[in-house]
Formats: sequence, structure tokens, C-alpha cells
Amino acid sequence: MRCLIAQAEVLAFIERCMLAVGSKPSHAKSLAEVLVEGDRRGHYSHGLNRMDVYVKDVQTGICAKEGEPVVEKETVATALVNGSNLLGPVVGNFCMDLAIKKALNVGIGWVVAHGSNHYGIAGYYSMQALRENMIRTLGTNPISVAAPAQDGDSFVLDMATSAVALGKIELYDRRGDIIPEGWGCDAQGKLSTDPGKVLDGGGLVPIGGGEVTGGYKGFGLGMMVEVFCGMLAGSQYSRYIRTWKGTDRVADLGQCFVAINPANFAPGFNSRLSDMLSLHRTLEPAKPDMEVFTPGDPERIHISRCEELGGIPYHINVVKFMNDCAKKIRVEPLLPCDRLISDS
Amino acid sequence: MRCLIAQAEVLAFIERCMLAVGSKPSHAKSLAEVLVEGDRRGHYSHGLNRMDVYVKDVQTGICAKEGEPVVEKETVATALVNGSNLLGPVVGNFCMDLAIKKALNVGIGWVVAHGSNHYGIAGYYSMQALRENMIRTLGTNPISVAAPAQDGDSFVLDMATSAVALGKIELYDRRGDIIPEGWGCDAQGKLSTDPGKVLDGGGLVPIGGGEVTGGYKGFGLGMMVEVFCGMLAGSQYSRYIRTWKGTDRVADLGQCFVAINPANFAPGFNSRLSDMLSLHRTLEPAKPDMEVFTPGDPERIHISRCEELGGIPYHINVVKFMNDCAKKIRVEPLLPCDRLISDS
Repeated sequence: MRCLIAQAEVLAFIERCMLAVGSKPSHAKSLAEVLVEGDRRGHYSHGLNRMDVYVKDVQTGICAKEGEPVVEKETVATALVNGSNLLGPVVGNFCMDLAIKKALNVGIGWVVAHGSNHYGIAGYYSMQALRENMIRTLGTNPISVAAPAQDGDSFVLDMATSAVALGKIELYDRRGDIIPEGWGCDAQGKLSTDPGKVLDGGGLVPIGGGEVTGGYKGFGLGMMVEVFCGMLAGSQYSRYIRTWKGTDRVADLGQCFVAINPANFAPGFNSRLSDMLSLHRTLEPAKPDMEVFTPGDPERIHISRCEELGGIPYHINVVKFMNDCAKKIRVEPLLPCDRLISDS
Repeated sequence: MRCLIAQAEVLAFIERCMLAVGSKPSHAKSLAEVLVEGDRRGHYSHGLNRMDVYVKDVQTGICAKEGEPVVEKETVATALVNGSNLLGPVVGNFCMDLAIKKALNVGIGWVVAHGSNHYGIAGYYSMQALRENMIRTLGTNPISVAAPAQDGDSFVLDMATSAVALGKIELYDRRGDIIPEGWGCDAQGKLSTDPGKVLDGGGLVPIGGGEVTGGYKGFGLGMMVEVFCGMLAGSQYSRYIRTWKGTDRVADLGQCFVAINPANFAPGFNSRLSDMLSLHRTLEPAKPDMEVFTPGDPERIHISRCEELGGIPYHINVVKFMNDCAKKIRVEPLLPCDRLISDS
């Protein structure tokens, strides 16, 4: 069973919870916006479902409330930024804005941050490029690239280099479902369909599966993102990265934000991209009842559905969990559960 | 059965064949070097095995013999290059050198070429970065990233965004072997283990396999490379790209070459990368008889084996095919087949 909640209500709820534990209003707003955008795009694993972690990060002081990101090293095209241990979305917005300014000036901006924290869906930042008619690309271990086509259309890739994101496994765990084979493994490195075993000392399986089907490529891509983030940033990396919900020490995550200005390359970028998207969308599907999607299409469909419904459909267990979380920090559990809709 | 041929002999043979059809000496040398490097690294699908295609490209005039690449648009950090329809390695070397110069100056160089042709293994270009202690990354539909660690060690990712590269399927076809399930599909989009069907109107399957295991991510990554190459370059893209061995029109391929200077980011890049590589190589393998490799390790092992053997082991059918190819252009078939070794 799912319940429908208006976007504005979820935004306000997350902001209230963050303010209650001491976040600055602008920081609370930045976080609320990226989490709700995750849900609106159908990536529930990276939305409201994770609010409790950010609340705890600020509440325990493991994530900083005060300060601003600082540029430590800079050329016309690059920058190294200290995220000052602020919430990930605060660091992400700062770095993306800086990358765009540089790309407007010299065609590209490559900005790397250390001292950052989790920032929600990577696509949120890359999509800001679309407003400026630029391509953006970035990664932690996800990779996201957004590029503008014509008439508001776009290419939006936003993917984990694992077969699925960890948040998806957490969501199955919270719902009490088993996960498909090939998503994760247990602590002994054996494939498992039990989300609990994957979360308890196990791990994600890289895209590609076994060796014959190219699983080593997914592993290589994950490491490539580490080169652009942890290696360039001088932040934590690989096994030194704190567990996702740990509050024993600061996260010090490395992130990489790139803006590319198509105006500095061949003319006609937008129409060429529209044509490429259209070439793929009009392919004959392998299964007659399926549609051919390009990156960003499933999310556009989810957004349309939310707009038709007049709200975002949430699994009721997620809403109850977050209302309980709000109670603990003495915030009124104002997420209403009265507009129930079926799961379909 | 394989036969062992000294690297210098293969280099000289390829150069002779290219000169016989009218290539400039420097262009013939550039091509020979990238093809032999492919074989030496164990990527036989992108080496001598493909020489006949380059010979035909130059012989028919579909690929230009004269001229040089031209910079059409430029900032301190970016460039758009017209490859002047020259052999891919000539364009690739030009663009990579330009990207490195820019990265030495402002931390990054992002160079995109149109009017290019097939350039062998992508890793050949990204690895040149290592000499300058830089990271390089590039793609056609492959993605390659090379980054320098300490004491000559490095991270070298060089992968197709399909489960395997087309050349691997050609190699199985030439040897008369069937391919593993999940590499390619037939003209109707159904998975097939017959390399002939894949090559005859079928296609490659993207990394990730089916939908549940994330095959759409491989598709998205392939399209991302297209955004950085065909879209930015204003070259051919998607279905407009000429079939690989076609000689009916020029290829006009788009390629993207990036150099990043770690000196413009956090200090200690090389030692951090060495540490990360070591962290992964020393992990306990899931199967006790296997080793954990990082990107570039299997190639290093193949190179060591070639050095111990004193030559590169080639499948005898590939050597015979190329000797026949040489005869047709009145070049002595000088690849010797007398040093036979077993396949193991």
C-alpha cells in the first residue's frame, strides 16, 4: 500500500526535521530539494527514505552545521574545494556552480571536492547543467551525465557502477522483500538474495555480473570514479570510507563535478542530441509490449505520474518510519497517511 | 596452435604493408605501433588481426593519405579538431599531445575530434599520459582511463561499453569458435552464440546483460560516450556510423581525448593510487585459486609473458590470413610461422 503526499509537504517536513537538529535554513532547503527530487524521479532509495541518516549526521555533529566550502587551489579550468564537512548538497551546489562559471569562460570546468558528505542523487547536480545548456558529469561511485537536447528534452544518465545502488537494497530490506540474484553478496563474497546479509558485512556486485559477461568492467568503472574523486581530492577512498550510516568519524568524501560547454565544440549540439534520442526511442523493441527508453525517460514518466496524481506515492512503511524519526526529535509527524493508493 | 613472432618483425610487416598501399612513413609507423601494442597487451582483437581493414581503407582512398589534423576551435582548456580523414592513430596522437599541453598549462585539456578513423586500442592513447604523470581518459564507444601510481605502477582501464568488443567476436569467427551466451545477438535481437550471426546484421549486447542485472546501464554508458564524441564533435553518430569494414564512404568518426594534471588537485596523487591498487590486489579472492587484479594487471602479465617468450604468440590462422593479405598487395609475406607453441 502506498500513500500520496504533496511534494510541498514532503519538502517542508524534511526542512523542519533538519532545522530541529540545528541545520541552517539554506542547508536544510538544499537537502530537502535533492531528496524530494530523488523521489519525484522514482529513485525512492535516494529520497525521503534516507532522511534519518542526514538528521543523525547533523544531530551528532559528525556533519558540520556552520561554515562554507573553500576553494583551495584553482586555475581557469579546475578547482580543488574543501567541503568543510558540510551536508553533501551544500558542497555539491557550490562545486557545480563553480564548474559552470569556468565552463562559460574556457569551455570546461573540472572541480573536485574533499571533506564532503553524501549528496543524494548525482543526477540532481548534473541536471542543473541543462538550464545553462551545458553538459555536466560527476561521480562519487555513481556516474551522472546530463546533456541538453532541443525543446526541453535531455539525456540524463544517473547510475551506480554496481548492478544496483545500496539504497535499493535498503529499500527492499525495509519492505521485507528479497532481492534478485546478482545484486549483492554476503560477507563471504557469495551471491545472496537476502538484503539483510548484503547490508550486514556483505557487498554490492559490480555491473556486468561474472567474469565471462564482463563484471570486471563494472569493477573498473567503479575504480575509475575513485580515481576522479578520492584520488584527485585527497579525501577518503576505498576501504577507508566510513560505512554509510557510521557516526564515529566524519565522512570526508571525495566528489568530482564537471561542466562542459557545447558552444566550444561543433555547432548544432542540441539538435544532434535530439536526433540521437529520437533514433533510439523509435527503434523496434525486442519485446513487442515494451518501449525503448533513453537515459532519463523512466524518470520523466515517473514525474508525469506524480503530476497527474498530485503528489508523490510513498510506501507506507517508509512514511511511518520517518514520522517516528520526527517524533524522536520532537518534530510533529506531519506526513499525512490518509491518501492511500494501490501499489500498481 | 600459435606461432611466436618477434615484435620488431610484426611492426616492420605492418609498416611495409601500409607503405605498399601509399601511407606516409610516419603514418604507417603510428598505426603499426598501436596495433602491435594491442597484441602485446593481449588484446588480439585490436591488433594485427585488423591490419587488412586499415590496408583496404588506405588502398581504396576512403581514408586520406595526405594532410594533417587541423584545430578548428580552441580555448586554453579545450579544442575541436578536424582529423582530416587521416588514419585514427595519427589523429589520436595529435589530439592527445594537444590535451596534455593544455593540462600542463591549466590543469585539464578536453579535445574532441571529428573526421577521424578507427584508432586501435583506446588504452594506447590514455597510457601516454603516464609518461607525463597525468590522467588521460577518452572514448569512441570504448572508455579508457590511465592514471599514474608510484614506481611505474598504474591504473589502466580500457573497455568497450558492450559486454565485449566487436573485435573479440571477429576473432572467434576467424578461429571458427562459438561465443559465450550474453556477448551478442542476431539480426532479430535474440541472444546468439554464433559469431557469424552477430557479425551479419546482429549486434553487441551492452555490459550488464538483461534489465534486472542492469543492462540498461551499459546502454547508458555507451550513449554517454556518444555525447562526448559524436555529439560534441559534430561527426557521424549512432546508426549513421559506417559499418566497420565499409569502404563506401569516409568514416568521419568522433573521438574525445582528455588529459588531467593531478598537480592541480590534492598533493600525493601517485602514492594514494599505489595504495588503492595495493588494497585491492591484496584482497582475499572469492575463489582460492584466483588472483585479484586491478585494471591493467592482466595486460601486464601478458606483456611479461611475451618478453619471456621473446615474441608475441599469434593464432596461426591470423598469421596466414595476414600473409595472404600481404601477397595481394605484392608485399612479401614475411611473417614467419616456424616458431610454433601450444595454445596454453
